[in-house]
Amino acid sequence: MTQDAYRITLASRPKGNPTQDNFGRETVTLDPPAKGQVAVRTIWLSLDPYMRGRMDDAKSYAVPVPLGAPMEGEGVGEVTASEHPDFKPGDIVIGRTGWASAAVLDGDGLRKVDPDIAPISTALGALGMPGLTAWVGLNDVAEAKSGETIVVSAATGAVGGVVGQLARAKGMRVIGVAGGPEKCAYAVDELGYDVCLDHHADDLAEQMAKAAPDGIDIYYESVGGKTLSAVIPQMNIGGRIPVIGMIAWYSGNNLDDALPLPAVWRAILSKRLKVQGMIVFDHHDRRAAFEKEVGAMIRDGDLTYRETVAEGLDAAPQAFMDMLKGGNFGKQLVKVGADPS
Amino acid sequence: MTQDAYRITLASRPKGNPTQDNFGRETVTLDPPAKGQVAVRTIWLSLDPYMRGRMDDAKSYAVPVPLGAPMEGEGVGEVTASEHPDFKPGDIVIGRTGWASAAVLDGDGLRKVDPDIAPISTALGALGMPGLTAWVGLNDVAEAKSGETIVVSAATGAVGGVVGQLARAKGMRVIGVAGGPEKCAYAVDELGYDVCLDHHADDLAEQMAKAAPDGIDIYYESVGGKTLSAVIPQMNIGGRIPVIGMIAWYSGNNLDDALPLPAVWRAILSKRLKVQGMIVFDHHDRRAAFEKEVGAMIRDGDLTYRETVAEGLDAAPQAFMDMLKGGNFGKQLVKVGADPS
Repeated sequence: MTQDAYRITLASRPKGNPTQDNFGRETVTLDPPAKGQVAVRTIWLSLDPYMRGRMDDAKSYAVPVPLGAPMEGEGVGEVTASEHPDFKPGDIVIGRTGWASAAVLDGDGLRKVDPDIAPISTALGALGMPGLTAWVGLNDVAEAKSGETIVVSAATGAVGGVVGQLARAKGMRVIGVAGGPEKCAYAVDELGYDVCLDHHADDLAEQMAKAAPDGIDIYYESVGGKTLSAVIPQMNIGGRIPVIGMIAWYSGNNLDDALPLPAVWRAILSKRLKVQGMIVFDHHDRRAAFEKEVGAMIRDGDLTYRETVAEGLDAAPQAFMDMLKGGNFGKQLVKVGADPS
Repeated sequence: MTQDAYRITLASRPKGNPTQDNFGRETVTLDPPAKGQVAVRTIWLSLDPYMRGRMDDAKSYAVPVPLGAPMEGEGVGEVTASEHPDFKPGDIVIGRTGWASAAVLDGDGLRKVDPDIAPISTALGALGMPGLTAWVGLNDVAEAKSGETIVVSAATGAVGGVVGQLARAKGMRVIGVAGGPEKCAYAVDELGYDVCLDHHADDLAEQMAKAAPDGIDIYYESVGGKTLSAVIPQMNIGGRIPVIGMIAWYSGNNLDDALPLPAVWRAILSKRLKVQGMIVFDHHDRRAAFEKEVGAMIRDGDLTYRETVAEGLDAAPQAFMDMLKGGNFGKQLVKVGADPS
């Protein structure tokens, strides 16, 4: 049995911010799964800032998406046919579907999603890569401790929202940075941040100094830009900066907001800072411990999350472009297909 | 019994590179040691790049030298009078004598130097703070492993010379960067570097790429500037950069040589680099292990070192200014007083 797939492709590489012209559409007929393969109908697609890097030709931590190929990404879907012993039709799985209504995938690259723990979309958010990124960055890279002060950039985002709540549960002072009063109110009222600063503020650096009277021990970095500039002077001796993204500087934007490298180097030296890049793909060995802790928190209502949903695959490019400018609120998803029956 | 001390003071704070005008001279009569104190006659004074930072008023990792006060520094000397039970006249000790011919110091801040292990001046070099800096940075911060490639800036300096030889003993590929053909020849011929690049070369970045065909796992950073720019593109995934200095950028020099911060941040993220500041004062707990290993290497002739000696305290300011421009060759010392009898 063959199946059609509607897909969004990379039509051209963006110069600066992506535009609709960079995306193409195609419908292809998929071969039935060969031995070891599984056919999946996509229900949810995850949109993530890292995808911007894949659109460029530059050397990054992953191979660029080839021109004309489907955009890459992770999705949750339902198995429609399987030639892999671990999967059968009707199973809910997570895997690299790409921006596609359906895909035939290597079964070894899929994981089952248990719909009884939480809504299946969380496998792309709080219980997925963003959650694992938050948990590993906070625990393994930043070595967060009770009583310390942490600043979380993109505080209400898919990663930051989890970081903030995990840090609060550890008994840390938690300072969020987010875009606009609505997100900041949500950060404080719903996610339990002690304080949240709006990165649009002209006096962000002064606000940061006031919000962190005992200095900053950890800066959970995913944006770069003005937030980084405001944080560096307040870092404490022995501070840690896990770097998981730099969304303000993607697409070549806001480069003038950067501190000079020698000033940052001086802070690293004189304060003995540890600045460490982190990519979640390196840390799948920590998934079991993460799922145990964060899964329990979600079940018990101790960890909340928010999703922004774009309806239908055709809405994905605009949702992606909006997300890069901070237009999403929490995890950005695309509802690609119907819920499982 | 009182004793006179001739001292070099901080007469004014430098604007940019220090000049002779920034230094003053004074002769004072020291009180005899009180209970717990020790009078020391200085034999060797250490000159180190970190002293440049102390001349500024800016917040650094240590309090600035007050205007008019003696320049700070570490020296090796002979005990002339003691009111501390651990020390007696004739003992050779190391402590914070400052730029002074004699000092009365708290005995708890002194350590005895054993003249049987190596010449006593090595307590300021390979067996002192520079050696400990090298050893801790390589082992604890950079977690160096056999088979990896390391780049050592200031390759023939007091720290770099030890780093290079320790790395070679570990079985690493060792690339040095130094100023000029004489230092580079010494690095390869005497210190065992696999290759040494002259940082004056216009094509340093190209030479670096060629010298590190398998990429760079560790960059032992003490200079910043063009060397850092040449290293960053060659760093391997999971690379480590211990930052122990940034001499090219002291005094506000060479700031235009710096890469833009976003480019460095991108490398940190995509290559999962660990960039970590290190100051030796935090690591005195590692001294015993360091002395055991490096002391044995020096005794067995497996670790060599070189010294540049300025004669007499009056020569210290010029020697210091020269050192900041790379005029020294190996450890920069000042011979302040006669050898022990």
